[in-house]
Amino acid sequence: MNDLTATGMAAKAASRTLAILPTARKNEALHAIAAELEAQQELILAQNSLDVADGRTKGLSDSLLDRLLLTPARLAALAADTHKVATLPDPVGAELESRMLSNGMRLSRRRIPIGVLGVIYEARPNVTIDIAALSLKAGNAAILRGGSETLRSNRALVQAIQTALRQVNLPAASVQLIDDPDRALVTALLRLDKYVDMIIPRGGAGLHQLCKEQSTIPVITGGIGICHLFVDESADLERAVDIIENSKVQRPSVCNALDTLLVHTAVAPQFLLMIAQRMAQCGVELRASPAAYELLRQTPARVLPAGADDFDQEWLSLVMGVHLVADVQEAIAFIQAHTTEHTESILTNNLANANAFVNALSSAALFVNASTRFTDGGQFGLGAEVAVSTQKLHARGPMGLEELTTYKWIGYGDGHIRP
Amino acid sequence: MNDLTATGMAAKAASRTLAILPTARKNEALHAIAAELEAQQELILAQNSLDVADGRTKGLSDSLLDRLLLTPARLAALAADTHKVATLPDPVGAELESRMLSNGMRLSRRRIPIGVLGVIYEARPNVTIDIAALSLKAGNAAILRGGSETLRSNRALVQAIQTALRQVNLPAASVQLIDDPDRALVTALLRLDKYVDMIIPRGGAGLHQLCKEQSTIPVITGGIGICHLFVDESADLERAVDIIENSKVQRPSVCNALDTLLVHTAVAPQFLLMIAQRMAQCGVELRASPAAYELLRQTPARVLPAGADDFDQEWLSLVMGVHLVADVQEAIAFIQAHTTEHTESILTNNLANANAFVNALSSAALFVNASTRFTDGGQFGLGAEVAVSTQKLHARGPMGLEELTTYKWIGYGDGHIRP
Repeated sequence: MNDLTATGMAAKAASRTLAILPTARKNEALHAIAAELEAQQELILAQNSLDVADGRTKGLSDSLLDRLLLTPARLAALAADTHKVATLPDPVGAELESRMLSNGMRLSRRRIPIGVLGVIYEARPNVTIDIAALSLKAGNAAILRGGSETLRSNRALVQAIQTALRQVNLPAASVQLIDDPDRALVTALLRLDKYVDMIIPRGGAGLHQLCKEQSTIPVITGGIGICHLFVDESADLERAVDIIENSKVQRPSVCNALDTLLVHTAVAPQFLLMIAQRMAQCGVELRASPAAYELLRQTPARVLPAGADDFDQEWLSLVMGVHLVADVQEAIAFIQAHTTEHTESILTNNLANANAFVNALSSAALFVNASTRFTDGGQFGLGAEVAVSTQKLHARGPMGLEELTTYKWIGYGDGHIRP
Repeated sequence: MNDLTATGMAAKAASRTLAILPTARKNEALHAIAAELEAQQELILAQNSLDVADGRTKGLSDSLLDRLLLTPARLAALAADTHKVATLPDPVGAELESRMLSNGMRLSRRRIPIGVLGVIYEARPNVTIDIAALSLKAGNAAILRGGSETLRSNRALVQAIQTALRQVNLPAASVQLIDDPDRALVTALLRLDKYVDMIIPRGGAGLHQLCKEQSTIPVITGGIGICHLFVDESADLERAVDIIENSKVQRPSVCNALDTLLVHTAVAPQFLLMIAQRMAQCGVELRASPAAYELLRQTPARVLPAGADDFDQEWLSLVMGVHLVADVQEAIAFIQAHTTEHTESILTNNLANANAFVNALSSAALFVNASTRFTDGGQFGLGAEVAVSTQKLHARGPMGLEELTTYKWIGYGDGHIRP
């Protein structure tokens, strides 16, 4: 029996300590956590082995088992990442603005932590360390709920974190794990609005939908990217092939990978032949709408006619939709009808078309003559990535440390009353 | 039968037109709306009279009837406010940052409208005009759901708005009213996440709770203020009486009105006598915890012993809780236990205590030596007030036009692929 009220209360109390902690103390805690990960390596790897063995028995796929696996090298990398978070600038405490009102009151807006984060994720033990470190650096307490496949690994990791927190005289409840695999506790966490200020789901569309449906706490939805790339008439076609390969093939399982290729009809006969050859070399299977299919079936590409829902799919694999459009306006309309507002790219040398694309679409990230793969906290220079938001409130696109903060207004008066 | 899917689709389509509309066109629409309010004055006031007559028959209180009532002067004021929104700076289009990444890509963050707003409010027809004007200025489409008591007034007002929109060749669906009083449509609106990007509830705690529970769309919760004011040992007691009167009495029915007065024990015998006299003059009834009650019962104040929930009440009337604390730390702890994180104020001349109060509390607005009544978009110089947020995501405190926007990332590359 896992009493989430007690967990929530402890997290809220810890968050009040963390909120006013000097940067040096938070960094001290991060270094202590990194050291403890190395010190408890044997225990952590032993527990992880049990998770991996169980996963194998349960028939988890090789790729899932690989995501679950910790090794001495991976644990050392996690410790190094934690040391690195200590070197990032502290987002808390900055005055975002400060001005004198006409009545003489000094009014400022100060950046403060969000408070308590609830993080729900799947079978990746590295998320446990990542999110704990980033949450702590931004002055937040975190309640973590990992996948049941990693329960023993996560217990060992959070135990190391809490040992380190105690060493530096910080509340162990700054990072807590819901260590009961009962799924009802996910729903319970989503309704713990008395104590939890923000929910961050890191997982597939089903998890995001569950959070949207069930949560009474504000949720950062995102991470689902049906990403489009439009090859305009004036695009440099040679480079377009390289950009599309990068967008689609470099890491097909992530949210910024390309899903749907749109091609201007004027260049389609020439370009589809070029892209078909490259995609065939890369093992990418195409799903083409009728006009594109007619052209592609005469190429070396593996191609199927696109099904009814094929343009509303985040493929997460070596599959890509292909559709022809008459101009940039048709490309925009097609994207608006199918996008999850994650990332879209236009390849063009036409200034008016580049501007039309970038102005009309409201996706979290829009690129001109670049790969969709750039939507990433590291690539954007944020220093870290907590999640990628595709919703309209709070943060959009890659979220770094600043996006784990909010602000308060502070007014210094001198006996001021409102007229 | 009111088909919200059609309403949502029309709003989304309109929002795409509004999103890229130049400021001058939006201002033209605002002036046209103001003109149409005056032109249709007779019709609007006639419909409003029917609402008021119905309200009287249903036994609505005088204060509710007054909030419901439109007069030629009030309508003229609404038209003037609409003209004024046209003079406010357009929040859309600004580049919030723009830098060159080390790989040569130019990355910027551009402010854009949220998209479609769903606004749910109670019996005040002026909200219909206010929110329509602000939503439009920020480039958003709005779906409005007013109280059933004002249905005829709202129909007439939205008809005037839509007439004006058509005059300037903008989609009438930029501002739509759900004009069916069926309450199931509120729930339907809260789940219209395919088309609506943000829900703004303007009403009491019940409405906010309903939105938190039912909405699959991000909600701006707020507007509920259990506001505290702490009179420290070193406060200027004469001025404290004036500040408390202003906080409590100026407009007791609004969210920034004072609810609970905390007094340092060292000054309580002297100060409670002073405040009791003033509160008695102002007709304020006190609810005091035991130590305060013992002192107050010997004064002219109307005072009752505080009940179990009296410090968890937003009074919205001439009632105020009173509690004694030993120091600023006890004041902070008491506030943290009871606040809705709207507004708190400390009256003190002690620098360390002022800092402790302002640092430890995370309410949306914190004041030193000033009235709680300053938490207001107009007072903060925002030019307008859409709502007051007390949640941690997106905006906090008074929300102006900028808080009706979000941003997108734009990257201009030159054939960039991710290494």
